[in-house]
Amino acid sequence: MNIAILTFEGFNELDSFIALGILNRMKSEGWNIQITCPSESVTSMNGVTVQAQQPLEFANSADVVLFGSGIYTRDIAKNKMILDRLTLDPSKQLIGAQCSGTLLLAVLGLLKELPACTDLTTKPWVIDAGVDVLNQPFIAKESIATAGGCMSSQYLAAWVIAKLAGRSAAESAIYYVAPVGEKEATVSHSMSILSPYI
Amino acid sequence: MNIAILTFEGFNELDSFIALGILNRMKSEGWNIQITCPSESVTSMNGVTVQAQQPLEFANSADVVLFGSGIYTRDIAKNKMILDRLTLDPSKQLIGAQCSGTLLLAVLGLLKELPACTDLTTKPWVIDAGVDVLNQPFIAKESIATAGGCMSSQYLAAWVIAKLAGRSAAESAIYYVAPVGEKEATVSHSMSILSPYI
Repeated sequence: MNIAILTFEGFNELDSFIALGILNRMKSEGWNIQITCPSESVTSMNGVTVQAQQPLEFANSADVVLFGSGIYTRDIAKNKMILDRLTLDPSKQLIGAQCSGTLLLAVLGLLKELPACTDLTTKPWVIDAGVDVLNQPFIAKESIATAGGCMSSQYLAAWVIAKLAGRSAAESAIYYVAPVGEKEATVSHSMSILSPYI
Repeated sequence: MNIAILTFEGFNELDSFIALGILNRMKSEGWNIQITCPSESVTSMNGVTVQAQQPLEFANSADVVLFGSGIYTRDIAKNKMILDRLTLDPSKQLIGAQCSGTLLLAVLGLLKELPACTDLTTKPWVIDAGVDVLNQPFIAKESIATAGGCMSSQYLAAWVIAKLAGRSAAESAIYYVAPVGEKEATVSHSMSILSPYI
């Protein structure tokens, strides 16, 4: 299972790395989760430079594509040099977005008529793109999911695992990363968020 | 305010980056949060290579030092070449550790008689180091704190903010990163975890 976490210049560390950490709980099952970037390295919104594990084109043949967010997403949403490198197909891929990543799903025409989740800062831009924004952390329909608020990245990752490896695998991944002493409660809460969509 | 997030080869992305993301909510107040490493770059447990923002010695004069965790912590705990570069002082610094980072606090003699939190994998090693391990996500006493379970990194970061900038600043940081639609509940829960220690 190839999973591309799209990570752009100015990225939000929480959005890319919470998903990456949780999805890598499936590494022993052969899942291959890759930080996927338009350049050889990208620097986060807080100045952390990360080497790309894959070029952007890796996303086009990946089984799952997750759009992270960041401080330059509005610029990327207008950057044809970057966006034209992506050819995604929701009939063959699971596609998700976190916070401002939702704006990129919108401009790529992947949301169609679906309402979406995003963060409070990005909300007006997503509405401008013609999308209904919901006041909830997560929504999915068929192969498209969106999440809002950095820590919702855990729901996006768990949704991917639940869709491709079943509910029990998603529960195990959440259990592992949850705080000690709060593991059962965290699994129960996460699955209550995801249950309508899996 | 200089804050070193100690990040070693084989590091857990969740532990270093959740703390970094949340602490950087204080960037506008002049806080300077730095990924601090023993080498010019480190590669995570899941293959992500990150450039160090500071060398290990930055920790010695930082206001706050947080030990991240990773898959090679047991080796680092025996590596005098690395540990001898650290000269920390809990009378002048806030010092925290996440998951296997707690083992490093123990071997550096910083825990003294304090019970500690860590993850379930590291727990037997920390017990072997003579420390009582608690079945809870977070504990702090004076300037020393430990957290267990990757997502507890949010408590460690919020504790630092609460200690140095007050409860309201910690609440704001947690509010910002919390899932949309769960912000008030997340703040309330986090502060209930931290309240005994701030």
